Amino acid sequence: MKNAFYAQSGGVTAVINATACGVIETARKHSDKIGTVYAGENGIIGALTENLIDTSLESDADIAALKHTPSGCFGSCRYKMKSLEANKAEYERLIEVFKAHDIGYFFYNGGGDSADTCLKVSQLSKSMGYPIQAIHIPKTVDNDLPVTDNCPGFGSVAKYIAVSTMEASFDVASMCATSTKVFVLEVMGRHAGWIAAAGGMVNSSIPVVILFPEVDFDEKAFMAKVDSNVKEFGYCTIVVSEGTKWPDGRFLAEQGTRDDFGHAQLGGAAPVVANLIKEKFGYKYHWAVADYLQRSARHLASNSDVEHAYALGAAAVEMALEGKNSVMPAIIRTSNNPYTWEIGVGELKDIANVEKMMPEDYISDDGFSITDKCREYLAPLIEGENYPPYKNGLPDYVVLKKSKVAQKLPTFEI
Amino acid sequence: MKNAFYAQSGGVTAVINATACGVIETARKHSDKIGTVYAGENGIIGALTENLIDTSLESDADIAALKHTPSGCFGSCRYKMKSLEANKAEYERLIEVFKAHDIGYFFYNGGGDSADTCLKVSQLSKSMGYPIQAIHIPKTVDNDLPVTDNCPGFGSVAKYIAVSTMEASFDVASMCATSTKVFVLEVMGRHAGWIAAAGGMVNSSIPVVILFPEVDFDEKAFMAKVDSNVKEFGYCTIVVSEGTKWPDGRFLAEQGTRDDFGHAQLGGAAPVVANLIKEKFGYKYHWAVADYLQRSARHLASNSDVEHAYALGAAAVEMALEGKNSVMPAIIRTSNNPYTWEIGVGELKDIANVEKMMPEDYISDDGFSITDKCREYLAPLIEGENYPPYKNGLPDYVVLKKSKVAQKLPTFEI
Repeated sequence: MKNAFYAQSGGVTAVINATACGVIETARKHSDKIGTVYAGENGIIGALTENLIDTSLESDADIAALKHTPSGCFGSCRYKMKSLEANKAEYERLIEVFKAHDIGYFFYNGGGDSADTCLKVSQLSKSMGYPIQAIHIPKTVDNDLPVTDNCPGFGSVAKYIAVSTMEASFDVASMCATSTKVFVLEVMGRHAGWIAAAGGMVNSSIPVVILFPEVDFDEKAFMAKVDSNVKEFGYCTIVVSEGTKWPDGRFLAEQGTRDDFGHAQLGGAAPVVANLIKEKFGYKYHWAVADYLQRSARHLASNSDVEHAYALGAAAVEMALEGKNSVMPAIIRTSNNPYTWEIGVGELKDIANVEKMMPEDYISDDGFSITDKCREYLAPLIEGENYPPYKNGLPDYVVLKKSKVAQKLPTFEI
Repeated sequence: MKNAFYAQSGGVTAVINATACGVIETARKHSDKIGTVYAGENGIIGALTENLIDTSLESDADIAALKHTPSGCFGSCRYKMKSLEANKAEYERLIEVFKAHDIGYFFYNGGGDSADTCLKVSQLSKSMGYPIQAIHIPKTVDNDLPVTDNCPGFGSVAKYIAVSTMEASFDVASMCATSTKVFVLEVMGRHAGWIAAAGGMVNSSIPVVILFPEVDFDEKAFMAKVDSNVKEFGYCTIVVSEGTKWPDGRFLAEQGTRDDFGHAQLGGAAPVVANLIKEKFGYKYHWAVADYLQRSARHLASNSDVEHAYALGAAAVEMALEGKNSVMPAIIRTSNNPYTWEIGVGELKDIANVEKMMPEDYISDDGFSITDKCREYLAPLIEGENYPPYKNGLPDYVVLKKSKVAQKLPTFEI
């Protein structure tokens, strides 16, 4: 009976811990077939440095509370393993650590990079004579993994952005006669406009202009659209992706501004857009940058997102016990209305390093809003509320004990 | 039997419509003593320009839904009436409009300015031989009105900032080993640090440094504090009020930065603080500016805030029917633990143009956090959740019909 290793990778989300909960609770149900679940402290770095957390020392109640706790409960990391050719020693070290702790299952919870790592570990472990079943579990607010209909983490960000866009628009609508006429909300998404698209989920009576990274910024057309909204509705709300670019490829956020010492000025795309409008029309504006608030907002998680996240963690363990290897459990949408879904399975070779962009027919012809097809896709992903318990006015999120496993190997520098 | 006039003033909040709901529902209960409740379209401007909304044409269900709808349902405005000496004609016009529509009760829902307007209307109307009972109803996210223990709107912003600070801190804590070590959240509050103080409501295991407008920015002490937090906890969260100032009185947000054309660079205090830390220590940072999201976030309203807001609206009508004039219903805290409160009454002469600042003993000696006394004050204000109903994944907020009353007077230019 082998032990398991679970690690969180890359930017954390409101629901990645729900996946951890699914993994650990399901493994506990199969304690006759699977040993201890170890977790990597700070993701894959925990495996490389042999800093393993013994999840068996966490209470059932604390593990259950992960389902309503945002962030990465074991720590995550931004650490991309190099190619096998460039740093085979790292992969070998991983497998040595797994061997030392009798680990036969590797659950890696992340985006495209971690799918690639998973695949390589599986391949190399076989050639090293210590075969490991490597299962990738999808997670990314960017929603850019192939095969799966959507990625856990995205639905909750989308709900947060849709609700925030709606609420701020209500605010501006009630003040625009004498005050702010333009509100700009900057959202995440450096390569793909999935998150920005969520701003288009508000009722069509709210004038929202979206700037996608997929669409070169057409200043003239944008200005005309904003102005016509202000004239028709009295105000305009703009949702700008941090990845929106000028036609020459520069990010809007990097407009070449300098501080008094000549240093490149930090920016965001939102103040740049707001300033352009002010210079052109003189409209009073406000802007917000949601940044981490959007991806950590477990208080406003989408229920379908929480259910997907948990189910994928549970399915990963089931697949491992069925002997599957180099795969990823995926969300398969079976119907839009009523929304139904099931768990499917994807091969890591089809997933590693493939980026799923927004389909062209999800963006309106003018490039400033989403199509009905996109709305149909997004609607079930923001559906349902899943509130955490509260204590003294604040969410009752759990912090785990994170007891370390005794190390058995020499130290390893990364 | 006289009609009533209700208007919303200044920046809107997550719960000002709950007050409107309290006013209208209570007036409807007393339909034998009070006639139609008219509302000002876009606040007091609606009265000056005789743009009155007939709230009797709104259904009971829609009025009830105001209790869970953020923003100003009749429109608000930033319009400060001048002094009686400077523009007596405006006050006279108000009273002419009230007279033309048989309005005997004036409910003005706002901050310090509107308390002042209320008082003047009451005084002038008496001298003009058409006495109006003017009742001010407190509302401001700034929490800066005297007499009342707290101002509706503030509790919900405070809850939003406390929860967001907690959630973003969980996020950063799980990534700080290899990524972001400093997170900066900019919050509202140009003159008073009440909103920033809410960042200090998170569990003490989270290292939060607060920058208040009341405390001159001490760059050296601040840097030392941030660095010591990063060294001890691995990360540091900073909550900075938009009103934080350098010792010479300039706002942090106005650091004199220029764009390539020499224009003053738009900023926020958050990117300025983040940049200072980056230059000094090289720590990776992220920053967010919550802006309107914080004051419109009805999805995360504090239950006590919603209850206060409704109760004050209801009490205003009761006071009017008891013959009171030039007063403001106020929240009187009768016990901290368990939290109990009742409605009291303040005289407008004690309220108009008086600003309640944070008591000195609410800010810690080092100037970077709040004291236990402050926590005791804030705790009940963020207590309880009061969720709006949802439809298709989004809050089901109401938009009123806003039917206009036929005008009877010549137009009036403001």
